[in-house]
Amino acid sequence: MISSGVYAGVFDLEYGLSRKDKAGGSIGQALQHIGYAGPHAVGGQAVHAAFELHIEQGPILEAQGITIGVVTGAQGQRWYEVELSGRSAHAGTTPMDHRLDALLGFARVAEAVNGLGLEQGAEGRATVGMTNIFPNSRNVVPGRVFFSVEFRHPDEAVLARQDQQLRDAVARIAACIGLQHNVKQIFLYAPIAFDSDCVAVVQASAEALGYSHRPMISGAGHDACYLNQVAPTAMIFVPCVDGLSHNEAEEISPEWSTAGADVLLQALLAKSNAEPMI
Amino acid sequence: MISSGVYAGVFDLEYGLSRKDKAGGSIGQALQHIGYAGPHAVGGQAVHAAFELHIEQGPILEAQGITIGVVTGAQGQRWYEVELSGRSAHAGTTPMDHRLDALLGFARVAEAVNGLGLEQGAEGRATVGMTNIFPNSRNVVPGRVFFSVEFRHPDEAVLARQDQQLRDAVARIAACIGLQHNVKQIFLYAPIAFDSDCVAVVQASAEALGYSHRPMISGAGHDACYLNQVAPTAMIFVPCVDGLSHNEAEEISPEWSTAGADVLLQALLAKSNAEPMI
Repeated sequence: MISSGVYAGVFDLEYGLSRKDKAGGSIGQALQHIGYAGPHAVGGQAVHAAFELHIEQGPILEAQGITIGVVTGAQGQRWYEVELSGRSAHAGTTPMDHRLDALLGFARVAEAVNGLGLEQGAEGRATVGMTNIFPNSRNVVPGRVFFSVEFRHPDEAVLARQDQQLRDAVARIAACIGLQHNVKQIFLYAPIAFDSDCVAVVQASAEALGYSHRPMISGAGHDACYLNQVAPTAMIFVPCVDGLSHNEAEEISPEWSTAGADVLLQALLAKSNAEPMI
Repeated sequence: MISSGVYAGVFDLEYGLSRKDKAGGSIGQALQHIGYAGPHAVGGQAVHAAFELHIEQGPILEAQGITIGVVTGAQGQRWYEVELSGRSAHAGTTPMDHRLDALLGFARVAEAVNGLGLEQGAEGRATVGMTNIFPNSRNVVPGRVFFSVEFRHPDEAVLARQDQQLRDAVARIAACIGLQHNVKQIFLYAPIAFDSDCVAVVQASAEALGYSHRPMISGAGHDACYLNQVAPTAMIFVPCVDGLSHNEAEEISPEWSTAGADVLLQALLAKSNAEPMI
C-alpha cells in the first residue's frame, strides 16, 4: 500500500522511494532498475474511478456459498499498547494473597477484550496478538506484561466506545489485583465508506452477470482505501479457501477467479460508458 | 544445591563437576583452582545432623512480626509445560466466531491455575511464569501458546489432585474454544518432612532464647532438602524485608541476623551435647 499511499498524499514521495526490502534495496532503486521511474509528477494524472478486485482474506463468502462481495467500505482500526506492572516474586515462597501478578491481570484483560469484540456481533473484531512477559521465568511470578490490543469496526462511534471500555476494564482489573497500568493508543485508522455510485455499479454488475452477492466491509487495509481519498473507488471480493491469507496455503478456485474478473470488467465498462471521461 | 545434591546421591559426581558458569569454567576446574579438590570420596564422611540458617525469601515472618521460622519441611513441586494450538488468523478479516484463538484459551487457563492456588489457602502456590505466544504479531490472532505451570504444596495428595484439576481445566477450556491441547509434567519434587527431633531442637532453642517463632514450610529448595535424605536435618528461617530474594534489594536487619545465628548455635550445641557423637 506504499505506492497508493504516496499517490493519495498519505506518504511523501521521498518516504515511499526510500523504503527498503530485507536485502537492502529501495523501491526507488528498483523502479530505476526496471525502467519505471518516469518523469511525471506523482498524482499528476487524475483518476476517473478505481475498482480493486481481491480475495476476501476471511471465511464469510465461502461459508455462505456466495460468489461476490460488494465491498461498501473498510473497518476503522484502533491499536493500543498496554502495560501492567506488579512485582516479580519467587513462585515458591510468595503466598497467593501477597502477589502482584501482572500475568493474572493480563489474562483478565485478554478475556475482557475478547468480550468487547463478541458483543459487536458479526462486525466486531477485538484482538490481543502480541504479548511480552517479564521476566518470563518458570518459577517467578511475572512482574510486568506488555501487550497489544486492537479493535476494528466500521462505525467510529463503536470504536470510541470500545476505547473507553478498554480503559475502564484495564483500570478495574489492575485495581483489583494491585497493579499499575498504562494504556496508550498508538494508531487510529478511520472507517472508510467507498463511493456509493461505484459500489452500486459493482452490485449491478454482479446482478447482471447472475452471480450471488452480498454487501461486505473489508477488515484489512487495501490500495483502494487510500485511492478512495482522491478518486471514486470501490472493491470486489471473491471467496478464498478457509479464509486463509498471507500464507502459502492461500487458495481460490478458477470459478471464483473468473467471477471476480467478470464483475471487475463489467463494472469498469459500466462506469466508463455511463459518464464522460475527463 | 549442586554440591549437596552430589553429596546426597541425587546427582552423579561427574555431573556436578562438569557444570559450567556463563564464562565456561566448570565447578571441577574451580575446585582445583582454589585447592578444594581433595582425595576423599564424596559422602564418605557421615553427618551426625545438619542445620541450615536461611532468610525466609517470603513475606510471612516480617508481616507477622515473628523472628524465627521453625522449618518443618519443604513443599512438593510439580512443574508442567502446556501447549494450546488453534489457528493463526488475520485480526481484521476473521470474525470472532470463526476464531480458534490460542491466547484466549491461555488466558482462561492462567485464571484457572490461579484459582487452584487460591483454594489451597496459605499453603497454596500456583504460578504461570513463562509464556511464549506464536506468531506474536499485533494483527494476528495467536495460533499457538506454549507456557509453564507449577504447583507447590506440602501435601503430595493435594499436588496429585491439582494435577488432575489442571488437566481437566485445560481440556474443558480447549474444547470450548476448539483448540488442541497438550499437558506434560516435566518435574516432580516430592514434599519433604525434616527430621522431627532436629525440628524440635530448633523450636526449643528459639524458645529458650526468648525469640518469637512459628512453624513454617519452605517454598523454595535448599541444600537441607538434599541433606535430609542422608542425615537428620532441619532449617531455621529469619525474616527478610518485603520477602524479596534473588534480587539486589534483598535485605535483613542485624537483629534478625543475630537471632538466626543464636538459634543455629544453640541448636547445634543442644544436638551435639544430647547425643554421643558417632
